[in-house]
Amino acid sequence: MSALWEPRPLVARADGLPSTVTVYEVGPRDGLQAESAVVPTAVKAEFCRRLAAAGVRNLEVTSFVPPGVIPALADAEDLLDELDGDGGLAGVRTVCLIPNRRGLDRARTAGVGEIAVIASATESFARANLNNGRDAAAQKAADVTAAARSAGLAVRGYVSMAFGDPWEGPVEPAAVAEIAAALYAAGCATISLGDTIGVATPGQIGTVVGALGAAGVPPESIALHGHDTYGQALSNVYAALLAGVTEFDASIGGLGRCPYAPGATGNLATEDLVWMLHGLGIETGLDLDALVRTSAWMAERLGRTAIASRVATALLAHSEVLT
Amino acid sequence: MSALWEPRPLVARADGLPSTVTVYEVGPRDGLQAESAVVPTAVKAEFCRRLAAAGVRNLEVTSFVPPGVIPALADAEDLLDELDGDGGLAGVRTVCLIPNRRGLDRARTAGVGEIAVIASATESFARANLNNGRDAAAQKAADVTAAARSAGLAVRGYVSMAFGDPWEGPVEPAAVAEIAAALYAAGCATISLGDTIGVATPGQIGTVVGALGAAGVPPESIALHGHDTYGQALSNVYAALLAGVTEFDASIGGLGRCPYAPGATGNLATEDLVWMLHGLGIETGLDLDALVRTSAWMAERLGRTAIASRVATALLAHSEVLT
Repeated sequence: MSALWEPRPLVARADGLPSTVTVYEVGPRDGLQAESAVVPTAVKAEFCRRLAAAGVRNLEVTSFVPPGVIPALADAEDLLDELDGDGGLAGVRTVCLIPNRRGLDRARTAGVGEIAVIASATESFARANLNNGRDAAAQKAADVTAAARSAGLAVRGYVSMAFGDPWEGPVEPAAVAEIAAALYAAGCATISLGDTIGVATPGQIGTVVGALGAAGVPPESIALHGHDTYGQALSNVYAALLAGVTEFDASIGGLGRCPYAPGATGNLATEDLVWMLHGLGIETGLDLDALVRTSAWMAERLGRTAIASRVATALLAHSEVLT
Repeated sequence: MSALWEPRPLVARADGLPSTVTVYEVGPRDGLQAESAVVPTAVKAEFCRRLAAAGVRNLEVTSFVPPGVIPALADAEDLLDELDGDGGLAGVRTVCLIPNRRGLDRARTAGVGEIAVIASATESFARANLNNGRDAAAQKAADVTAAARSAGLAVRGYVSMAFGDPWEGPVEPAAVAEIAAALYAAGCATISLGDTIGVATPGQIGTVVGALGAAGVPPESIALHGHDTYGQALSNVYAALLAGVTEFDASIGGLGRCPYAPGATGNLATEDLVWMLHGLGIETGLDLDALVRTSAWMAERLGRTAIASRVATALLAHSEVLT
């Protein structure tokens, strides 16, 4: 295989695209929270350090949810302690997901500098996952946001089910914009639109981004949080780039899952996103080879024989990559 | 799961897209030629009939290559006989790949109405796979095209390695356009641009389509033949739609492979393509559920436990689909 061209993204810029974007890595939180295997805190810390070494500068590390709700993330304080201890995340923006005021208190005690809050565009998801009606969940997220801002923390806001909902079907862009605007007004610097079940197609992206714009949330404050359940995530990213969005959530190795389609693919894989962005001539600061090595390392820790990233799978099939 | 919304593509049109496109199914040829398992002719015929029943109207059925070169397709005549016999492909445009004049003779004897020829944009692939230099291979394909046209057959032309080549790296759009224009001038009605190793990213698509346009091959005579090796195929389709392309090659269940990355994903899966197109409000005439059932049926025949289509994998995880 030595005569083989080592595959790397072919670079060709398309008109109207940004020269740099933010890749927001959610693997340690959104990815690992879906794992039934217990991942030791030391392994999580090493995972975060390897991501940082691969160039990750925006990292959602864990969540301060009640330990009984998501046991996989019950070690949030210990993980932050371990990461603080060795300085391996110096220069990395680390974010923790916070479901409520109690979580905010825990995060402040732990010395967290940025939190993420979560609301839902639909009534059904809010009731099933946020223990509240849609509007009450949004109000709670806005309250946590305001309290965090008062305490000097930065805040990022998720709007789940921003395109389609497993119970309600297509979601009205105006309904998404209403929740997004509430979080934005409360002090969220970025609104991350979650295609939680991966059903969105590219035509929706511009429509929803436009609806947020009309409600006062500009594209430069919007992130796209895609799931690749139906293979659509990257084309949605491309549509979002064309609509002016410059921040994208992804999970290394596609870690995570779709709770409504067991066995299906979860989050958009960071490696696949980075391949496309680099191919479009967009700077990410990320080292694709190091990401793939980290992905392979973590898959081994999780006992996985397959990686839900097509880039990682293909590059690992080339023996050059891991030598 | 009965309360669950049955996932279907959410429909939202984007500006400037066509209302209908041609999906060109290559599973029985490009997919099965990569299989080491011997698939009985009767199973291939049933596969084609099931595809037709799912709405497939553009089908590459087999290839008249020398039997020693691709043993998996050595039964080309028998398959066509069997398909002719029962009329199960009535109304379906059936196409056979032809590598040379001998293949054309066999195809004519078998009563084939449309053939596909193949050329390469790069010297290395031509020498490795077409037993000729780049220009000689293009000349041979043009000669076969002209002979087929004289005999009243329709002809489709493939240009392989139209974006990146495993030996040569990025391919110059002008080199692709030169080969495409030669095939077009010889009488190919459609030029299918092969991203044979799946390395293309969306920014390249408009550039290459533009280069073909400058060489006299308009977008409405261009098809995109994507491989999903690095997960980029659908975003390239979206870019091609925006560039005016209206024909897309795909393989049911992602059958096929990447010969240069063993274990990696092969052709773009028809189900994933159809999900996006339907989500964009574009008519294909295809029945997504029937495609997924056909995909599952064929995977079982091939002894595969996983399907390289994210849509098929996710929908099959919903028990509703197969009941």
